[in-house]
Amino acid sequence: MDATTGIHEGNERFRTAVRTADSAGTPALYTRDATVLPPNGDAVHGAEEIERFWATAFENGVTEARPVTLEVIEMGEYALEVGEYTVLSGDDILDRGKIMVLWHRDDGFWKMHRDTWNSSLRLPAG
Amino acid sequence: MDATTGIHEGNERFRTAVRTADSAGTPALYTRDATVLPPNGDAVHGAEEIERFWATAFENGVTEARPVTLEVIEMGEYALEVGEYTVLSGDDILDRGKIMVLWHRDDGFWKMHRDTWNSSLRLPAG
Repeated sequence: MDATTGIHEGNERFRTAVRTADSAGTPALYTRDATVLPPNGDAVHGAEEIERFWATAFENGVTEARPVTLEVIEMGEYALEVGEYTVLSGDDILDRGKIMVLWHRDDGFWKMHRDTWNSSLRLPAG
Repeated sequence: MDATTGIHEGNERFRTAVRTADSAGTPALYTRDATVLPPNGDAVHGAEEIERFWATAFENGVTEARPVTLEVIEMGEYALEVGEYTVLSGDDILDRGKIMVLWHRDDGFWKMHRDTWNSSLRLPAG
């Protein structure tokens, strides 16, 4: 499966996991030694921490995530995705911003290996 | 030059550009078609926008940036760097956080091709 198709499918699985608040299913979207770099927090490493990270997000009201792929740079077994996202709680937009994800082909699936994003919303004046 | 050495040298050139507020020198640290994804703003594309982005950062008081490479994933002519950073204004720490940079070998140098970061500082309670 080519990287662009694999990333599209991976993002569809991710959207479903968020929509169903399936934190237990999130580690399967990532490689075994994946790292997530969330804004305003420390790096998150591996299945257990990733599941806990998403469980907390769902407890905090996240009900939907809409990643949009703008670019895929293919590098053999790896591919870098650059894109945008919107995160919702019900009908409320919690955040929108930019994503950068290194995907890795793993056992027939493309999975997230290094995953980060940041908000495009301006900070309130401090 | 291997990726790890090239990234180290690229980061040294970046630190010098920040320390000397050399916004005009920043595009040479990036590939011609580079994208920067800064937090709390829109994506920045190409030399002119990159120079303007860093000029604004220097006008806003940034006097030093300290990137620290924690990991380099080599992928031929590309390499992904994951790390940490501290940004200072004089002796004051403005921000510290995490970086994720896709570097590309370009004309003998390793240059930043896709560059993003986010803060590890917690947001004030809203």
